Amino acid sequence: SLGLCSLMFVCLFRHIQDPASQRLTWNKPPTSVLVIKKIRDASLLQPFKELCVFLTEVKNLLVYVEKKVLEDPAISGDENFGAITKKFCTFREDLDDISNRVDFIICLGGDGTLLYASSLFQESVPPVMAFHLGSLGFLTPFKFDTYQSQLTQIIEGNAAIVLRSRLRVRVLKENWEKKARVDEKGIILTNGDVESSRKAMEYQVLNEVVVDRGPSSYLSNVDLFLDGHLITTVQGDGVIVSTPTGSTAYAVAAGASMIHPNVPAIMITPICPHSLSFRPIVVPAGVELKIMLSRDARNTAWVSFDGRKRQEICHGDSITITTSCFPVPSICFRDPVNDWFESLAQCLHWNVRKKQNYLSSEDEDF
Amino acid sequence: SLGLCSLMFVCLFRHIQDPASQRLTWNKPPTSVLVIKKIRDASLLQPFKELCVFLTEVKNLLVYVEKKVLEDPAISGDENFGAITKKFCTFREDLDDISNRVDFIICLGGDGTLLYASSLFQESVPPVMAFHLGSLGFLTPFKFDTYQSQLTQIIEGNAAIVLRSRLRVRVLKENWEKKARVDEKGIILTNGDVESSRKAMEYQVLNEVVVDRGPSSYLSNVDLFLDGHLITTVQGDGVIVSTPTGSTAYAVAAGASMIHPNVPAIMITPICPHSLSFRPIVVPAGVELKIMLSRDARNTAWVSFDGRKRQEICHGDSITITTSCFPVPSICFRDPVNDWFESLAQCLHWNVRKKQNYLSSEDEDF
Amino acid sequence: SLGLCSLMFVCLFRHIQDPASQRLTWNKPPTSVLVIKKIRDASLLQPFKELCVFLTEVKNLLVYVEKKVLEDPAISGDENFGAITKKFCTFREDLDDISNRVDFIICLGGDGTLLYASSLFQESVPPVMAFHLGSLGFLTPFKFDTYQSQLTQIIEGNAAIVLRSRLRVRVLKENWEKKARVDEKGIILTNGDVESSRKAMEYQVLNEVVVDRGPSSYLSNVDLFLDGHLITTVQGDGVIVSTPTGSTAYAVAAGASMIHPNVPAIMITPICPHSLSFRPIVVPAGVELKIMLSRDARNTAWVSFDGRKRQEICHGDSITITTSCFPVPSICFRDPVNDWFESLAQCLHWNVRKKQNYLSSEDEDF
Amino acid sequence: SLGLCSLMFVCLFRHIQDPASQRLTWNKPPTSVLVIKKIRDASLLQPFKELCVFLTEVKNLLVYVEKKVLEDPAISGDENFGAITKKFCTFREDLDDISNRVDFIICLGGDGTLLYASSLFQESVPPVMAFHLGSLGFLTPFKFDTYQSQLTQIIEGNAAIVLRSRLRVRVLKENWEKKARVDEKGIILTNGDVESSRKAMEYQVLNEVVVDRGPSSYLSNVDLFLDGHLITTVQGDGVIVSTPTGSTAYAVAAGASMIHPNVPAIMITPICPHSLSFRPIVVPAGVELKIMLSRDARNTAWVSFDGRKRQEICHGDSITITTSCFPVPSICFRDPVNDWFESLAQCLHWNVRKKQNYLSSEDEDF
Repeated sequence: SLGLCSLMFVCLFRHIQDPASQRLTWNKPPTSVLVIKKIRDASLLQPFKELCVFLTEVKNLLVYVEKKVLEDPAISGDENFGAITKKFCTFREDLDDISNRVDFIICLGGDGTLLYASSLFQESVPPVMAFHLGSLGFLTPFKFDTYQSQLTQIIEGNAAIVLRSRLRVRVLKENWEKKARVDEKGIILTNGDVESSRKAMEYQVLNEVVVDRGPSSYLSNVDLFLDGHLITTVQGDGVIVSTPTGSTAYAVAAGASMIHPNVPAIMITPICPHSLSFRPIVVPAGVELKIMLSRDARNTAWVSFDGRKRQEICHGDSITITTSCFPVPSICFRDPVNDWFESLAQCLHWNVRKKQNYLSSEDEDF
Repeated sequence: SLGLCSLMFVCLFRHIQDPASQRLTWNKPPTSVLVIKKIRDASLLQPFKELCVFLTEVKNLLVYVEKKVLEDPAISGDENFGAITKKFCTFREDLDDISNRVDFIICLGGDGTLLYASSLFQESVPPVMAFHLGSLGFLTPFKFDTYQSQLTQIIEGNAAIVLRSRLRVRVLKENWEKKARVDEKGIILTNGDVESSRKAMEYQVLNEVVVDRGPSSYLSNVDLFLDGHLITTVQGDGVIVSTPTGSTAYAVAAGASMIHPNVPAIMITPICPHSLSFRPIVVPAGVELKIMLSRDARNTAWVSFDGRKRQEICHGDSITITTSCFPVPSICFRDPVNDWFESLAQCLHWNVRKKQNYLSSEDEDF
Repeated sequence: SLGLCSLMFVCLFRHIQDPASQRLTWNKPPTSVLVIKKIRDASLLQPFKELCVFLTEVKNLLVYVEKKVLEDPAISGDENFGAITKKFCTFREDLDDISNRVDFIICLGGDGTLLYASSLFQESVPPVMAFHLGSLGFLTPFKFDTYQSQLTQIIEGNAAIVLRSRLRVRVLKENWEKKARVDEKGIILTNGDVESSRKAMEYQVLNEVVVDRGPSSYLSNVDLFLDGHLITTVQGDGVIVSTPTGSTAYAVAAGASMIHPNVPAIMITPICPHSLSFRPIVVPAGVELKIMLSRDARNTAWVSFDGRKRQEICHGDSITITTSCFPVPSICFRDPVNDWFESLAQCLHWNVRKKQNYLSSEDEDF
Repeated sequence: SLGLCSLMFVCLFRHIQDPASQRLTWNKPPTSVLVIKKIRDASLLQPFKELCVFLTEVKNLLVYVEKKVLEDPAISGDENFGAITKKFCTFREDLDDISNRVDFIICLGGDGTLLYASSLFQESVPPVMAFHLGSLGFLTPFKFDTYQSQLTQIIEGNAAIVLRSRLRVRVLKENWEKKARVDEKGIILTNGDVESSRKAMEYQVLNEVVVDRGPSSYLSNVDLFLDGHLITTVQGDGVIVSTPTGSTAYAVAAGASMIHPNVPAIMITPICPHSLSFRPIVVPAGVELKIMLSRDARNTAWVSFDGRKRQEICHGDSITITTSCFPVPSICFRDPVNDWFESLAQCLHWNVRKKQNYLSSEDEDF
């Protein structure tokens, strides 16, 4: 007798998340590129100039650069480079919209540049090629010395992609205001009623949302909901909700496991939790998390998004988090698996240490 | 200019792993049930008998029971119960094949019974309903007191399912044998040539594959390959390769994060690694892992599968692990998310402890 | 030939830290007692009143109580109790000096009361008897139900003592002030020279000194000196310097081992350190630690003392920490070893959980 | 009124454990030296020969070497070196007693050589000078390139010493034997009575005693007693009882904090404990620990001493551990504090990594 649904037993997993199948595909050749440079780092000036000349003159790409980058005296004062900057498109953060205008992005200077690139695109993000210049990083697989041949490969579409999921975070704040009525001389007539106005904001984060105790010495005390159900209360320094990409950032310092970016998951990591058995937990991508102050929390909490836009969270406010529809397509140096393990080996000093035996032995090889 | 492949930006995640969509579906009503009972636990005798009577007499199901369960004197000596056991189908582990013969499984007695059920079905597994009787567990959501109404619901198809992925593990052993030729008197004529014969075995595991140093005091030293590439060498007490289900078992004791069973992933957890920065890592379900002794390993290693079939691994042997095509469909008490968090809360004493403040405060509430 | 100093090989350890030898000894019978009560906790009112009556009327002790405790309406409004409060000595925190005036201290209400008691005595501290009322704690071994007989024992000198070491912390702040000279009309004549004035403060802490990133999202970056030598830079959320008593408070949440209060040591625990191999370290009591902002730290840090007196630390400021000459003598319920393990068992749910096997087995006891 | 014992408040800590005060002191100039060389390591041959010539010919010291070291063909086959070996004293491990015959020890080749040296001296140990040759180590502070001047300093008594405490471990085994009586033809007359004979062994360990599950897949289940009281049951892979010296060996891999060798303490570290809140604990040196199989343990356990002499522990057997009266005097390269932090920095890659910020920032330094 076979009364089971046969559908259950097909092999679901392999084709869903096959990292090998994600490759860069251009519908038509790219014509524009955004170059992001870490500022205040003198060592990046020469590579930046060299790269821009190559992109403009050799590859005939329209280069987008942020206005403040060109205002750096070391750049604006360079007459040789001045001529070429006239061909650039410039923009200002938060003022000019460049979404849908650039075909791909090049980052020079550490994981922070990729987080910054992510913050510029609140909806779809062009593919990003990130160079590690001067510092190691988990998100910057490319070396600069062979940038020309690598760029040529990418422009021709010969590259693997890893889709780094982001989190869509909605913050809903209840602003309680006293509506006081005053007469012409400023004398208070009534204390008025307390009125609230709701304010909602939305962020796309690539690494993590952090809720912590901020300047307070108190434990933070937040309730964690999953798909509408109260799951647990986190008591401690705070809680990190991160993408797999963010699992190797702040979360790993707080004790998290390291998750490959192709795993469709969201990680919840308590920071110095009061309960010693509260371990980091990993839930499926797509669930909806909500964080609120616990009713008996004595202090407010603070939230930040990839380390930015830090703000206070009060009683009644809520932070709603789910997997974003707009991942960051990261161009791979080799492929998603090798790049990731290479970055772990580099950043964590794997295989660096000489092999030793902490357990000595009976035999003569002591 | 929009040169990007538009395919990239659809929202992949939600519908892929929607836990809510997995429900028990019968093509035709179930007619047979396998009852697994932990043996040598007197407290389970009464529930077991009561359940069997209900299944046979009220629900008219054909009950499968392992032969050794009925041979327990406390059961075989019970004349009242004796009559009904005559209606049971019995089988012997490793000798009789019951695959494709039972419609669902009921487990009485702790997480171990589910691991045992899993081991009986090397290919597709019928849905499992697991009661926690006497002990808490991560895999046993049902309470026994309302078993009748719960079983009725399940037989009618009113239940959610969580598909617990398993790992398919292939062990390839090189057996080196000395082919010595001896004369009639047993005198060795030649030392012969060393000959090898290959032996392959396959296992389906629900929790984890453990490779450890076994009885040795030495560190184990194994190479870890992912999709054919050497990723790292694990030096320490060993390494655990686990499913999300296994993440809350041995792996969590070794420092792993806890992964919801709906996340399509494989977890790799070093046991007491020599390198302090070697954290547990999570890779996408479907990748192929391979573990071999490192070339310079001074000792053999030992492998076990859900704690069973322990065997030695020598130079040249390999353990190949990937996500199995045959998950274990676990019947939920409520749903995959609530059941999981409920088991965490129970097993880890979450929310048990009175709230305290380790950081005292300036104000008077000290 | 025996050229060695024989002195080396005597058995140093046992008699130095023999916990059994520390017992409460009165030179003359105690005549005064300070009662500390957690405020805003209604459940403590009845025990507090009962205890005060017993101490005053039965034991003829002079009771010291903080003024604000008696100002609680639930106490000041109780006419029956009012008569007896007239016999109390009252004092105000930070205004009245009660050092050398009380023979012992009784705490009602959780670990925070002991920290508070400690803060009242910057030099020698009278012995403390701490009751856990309503909440578990690591520092409050006494149950209230048999308080009369227990107090009688203590007054007769029948009690063991654990000397809880404290840390003496000196904060040296460089206050940079602009010395501007203005004429009578307030017009600035010169920008003046920058002048600094040094300000030094001293604290005795029972649990820990915490240096953290405060409201900043940046990593904190502090240099750690030991006996004048730069040991390492701590990059992360911050660093905790704790006593053995404090090892079971904030430090354990940050990953520290738990140290018995009789071990003469100071513990240094990084909070979410950037370097994954930076483990908590334990150094001998009596060394001098110094913490300063790293030269390249981009933000200030914040320091607090047993969770109190939180203040900012800027470039040039220093925090010097060593073992205090004034420990807190804690009266034991049984003895230092049993009390400590009892508190661990209670607070960490040891032995609560039913024994389970995460590794299942070959045999039939699955 | 001051009824307190004044004795309580003297500053105990500083002079007890002042690391600076422990210096090498020779009653008369050293005349003999034991040289320990890791065998099977070709890179050590040249340094070994060079050192032995220097000790014999320049310093006129009587050199002790283990017999098997000289039997290495690479040494016995070297005619030039052969002449000098004739002046050496040789001995065999476990057969010849060299205690009280050597004035100091030189180790060439890794932490294992120091553990081996420790095992040769079950009572008092001569001072040890340990070179790290080829591998980093926590216990080997000396570089070989300036060995001549360093040795001269030491022979003249210009060196600091760190006294590394050891553990004295007593294993008491109950050997149950069947006393069967047989007649002359070997036929069993009676099954006899079961008789037990007790066997006691004692070991001095420098790093740790490990009790683990050995070849079993089961959890080990051992009871831990402190000064005669049952403290807790350890359920997991096992338990490590270590010295501060051992805290940076196996224990740190199992999650322990790192303890400076001058802290008079014993560390108890569970290995992969079943209870997630069971952290490593540190108790005062001098307490007496006892480990036995729990009554309900289903399997035996295995014990080893600095990774050696591995043996099975059965029901009724006990392992009694306390601080040994015979520490290992380790000669410092600089002093106990600097040497220790230097070894941490080297072995854990502290300060190696370029400074990075996992928390990015609002400002433009991203």
